[in-house]
Amino acid sequence: MQLFKPSGNTDIEGVDTTNACYGGTAALFNAVNWIQSQFWDGRYALVVAGDVAVYPPGPARPTGGAGAIAMLIGPNAPITFNRVRATHMEHVYDFYKPDLSSEFPTVDGKISIECYLSALDCCYERYCKKENRPDVSFDDFDYFCFHSPYCKLVLKSFARLCVNDYFLYSDKEQLDSKYPDLVPFKNLNLKETYFNRELEQAAVKCSKTSFEAKTLPSLMIASMVGNMYTPSLYGGLVSLLVNKNAESLLGKRIGMFSYGSGLASSMFSLQVSKDAGRVEPLLASLGDIPSRLEARTALPPAEFTTILKAKEDSYNKAPYQPTASLDTLTSGTYYLIEVDPQYRRTYGRRP
Amino acid sequence: MQLFKPSGNTDIEGVDTTNACYGGTAALFNAVNWIQSQFWDGRYALVVAGDVAVYPPGPARPTGGAGAIAMLIGPNAPITFNRVRATHMEHVYDFYKPDLSSEFPTVDGKISIECYLSALDCCYERYCKKENRPDVSFDDFDYFCFHSPYCKLVLKSFARLCVNDYFLYSDKEQLDSKYPDLVPFKNLNLKETYFNRELEQAAVKCSKTSFEAKTLPSLMIASMVGNMYTPSLYGGLVSLLVNKNAESLLGKRIGMFSYGSGLASSMFSLQVSKDAGRVEPLLASLGDIPSRLEARTALPPAEFTTILKAKEDSYNKAPYQPTASLDTLTSGTYYLIEVDPQYRRTYGRRP
Repeated sequence: MQLFKPSGNTDIEGVDTTNACYGGTAALFNAVNWIQSQFWDGRYALVVAGDVAVYPPGPARPTGGAGAIAMLIGPNAPITFNRVRATHMEHVYDFYKPDLSSEFPTVDGKISIECYLSALDCCYERYCKKENRPDVSFDDFDYFCFHSPYCKLVLKSFARLCVNDYFLYSDKEQLDSKYPDLVPFKNLNLKETYFNRELEQAAVKCSKTSFEAKTLPSLMIASMVGNMYTPSLYGGLVSLLVNKNAESLLGKRIGMFSYGSGLASSMFSLQVSKDAGRVEPLLASLGDIPSRLEARTALPPAEFTTILKAKEDSYNKAPYQPTASLDTLTSGTYYLIEVDPQYRRTYGRRP
Repeated sequence: MQLFKPSGNTDIEGVDTTNACYGGTAALFNAVNWIQSQFWDGRYALVVAGDVAVYPPGPARPTGGAGAIAMLIGPNAPITFNRVRATHMEHVYDFYKPDLSSEFPTVDGKISIECYLSALDCCYERYCKKENRPDVSFDDFDYFCFHSPYCKLVLKSFARLCVNDYFLYSDKEQLDSKYPDLVPFKNLNLKETYFNRELEQAAVKCSKTSFEAKTLPSLMIASMVGNMYTPSLYGGLVSLLVNKNAESLLGKRIGMFSYGSGLASSMFSLQVSKDAGRVEPLLASLGDIPSRLEARTALPPAEFTTILKAKEDSYNKAPYQPTASLDTLTSGTYYLIEVDPQYRRTYGRRP
């Protein structure tokens, strides 16, 4: 709120929404709902998705990343929401942060994968049902972005949607020619196939071309910076926009699957405007992403570990003054100056 | 989400909104916005405002209370939102919970009172401006509910709104006869009067009759159970509804002021339907509140302290099994059975 005070604009609704990797999506939904309500007064909404995406030392650590995404929501948007939204929420302990003395999550990896895939199944089936057209299928989406805990799960998720298309049709024969690799699995119970490697491989194989066209362009940031948690799905959208020119985006429908452990998940779709005059400024504003990614400094893993250890040691400590050099911060970066004995935080900004 | 699963209804949007005593208001706004958006599908929204309202031993402890409020939001409501909402948000450390190893807040009492009153001033001035009528004043509200950290602050807040009315009119002479006790203060700077005892006493005196008619009936629950934090304002609304019959509510406008430290605050108004057939069922559903308050068991302060100490000692502990007797729980109450070594919680329900 400190950014708005100097202009006297403190009449701003909205507070933190918190739910693992799903909080940003919840905030985005709230912002769009506000703009469609009678309470909207013509101003923009701002959604900031950020997180503390760190794992303890071990195999999960390299999947954790860093980043935040800000989204400006308003009228005459280059990208709009389609009406259908399908959600699945469930009480489950797949990934959570119960120990308040630590920033690290408690993770049950196998349950987490099953939760992600079953939530995807559930949202997709509901989404198709709500579209209320008998022929709805994955072909309706020109592109598809997924929450990306790690890129291989997205590959499997994409394939999973094709499996769903195959299974959701009661007359599977119609699709046998489209998905010949899935024919041997046609009599399986879909809900029992989350860890069926043969089916998974067959699905990945027969969806490979579609995956490369529709989803691979959305994985640029996720593959370069890791899982950002809450902003992850929107990093996927940014990646897609960076990797496509206006011509290949105008009028296109982008499927979106948001997942947060605990669990909360939604599938919805975005519509890119057919008006190049609206879309091109958005694409231009994202034009520096590749060069910003390029400008990063590579550190050896041991040094990364040292940095995370220092972060761990200072967690929840007051008073605290960071000792790291400011030289590595790019111009405009905010940084913590100190935490005083009453835990009050002061931030500075790199000129 | 466990309550919805048996019916197969897991298509439910919305996650936690967190902001001191303001989180419930933010959730309520989100729910109402959803119902006015194109994404609404005809179902009810449910807003649950709950909190951990405890203070460490000391003078603040007796002001802390307990309770939760659930609100059902839908069409044909007996109480609706008027369009105008005025908000004031500011970055301030008046009351916060920075030490994650404790449930107790860090409080700067004097700053907190100044924040509450200045936020009230700010929201009220904005609300009146947005109503866009030259004659808007406190008289437009038939009743007024406030966030109630303790009842005396509500008395002062009510008086403060009258002071605002007096100061907001550039031609104060018009109001001299209405607020004769405020005349000696007419040349003060409003923003410097938060701790002016003489002005406060004069304002309380000249607003006493209005206070008793418009706000006192909303303080029943707050005076009997203390500050519930997030549900506090809505406990005020419930109190008002319990203490008034349908006739004295039909068609009436209820002013609402929500405050959460940090700070987030909003003023808005509710409109009671003119249709007795809608309002009476709501009043009937709240009819058992007085008897439920009556049925509470009084404990000596020392015993309350012992209970809170046990709670403090078990905070953030895993594994943990409560040892308290279930006999004191009324029928239908949910209770914690255990926290397992992975911090997973299991709840039971008293038959």
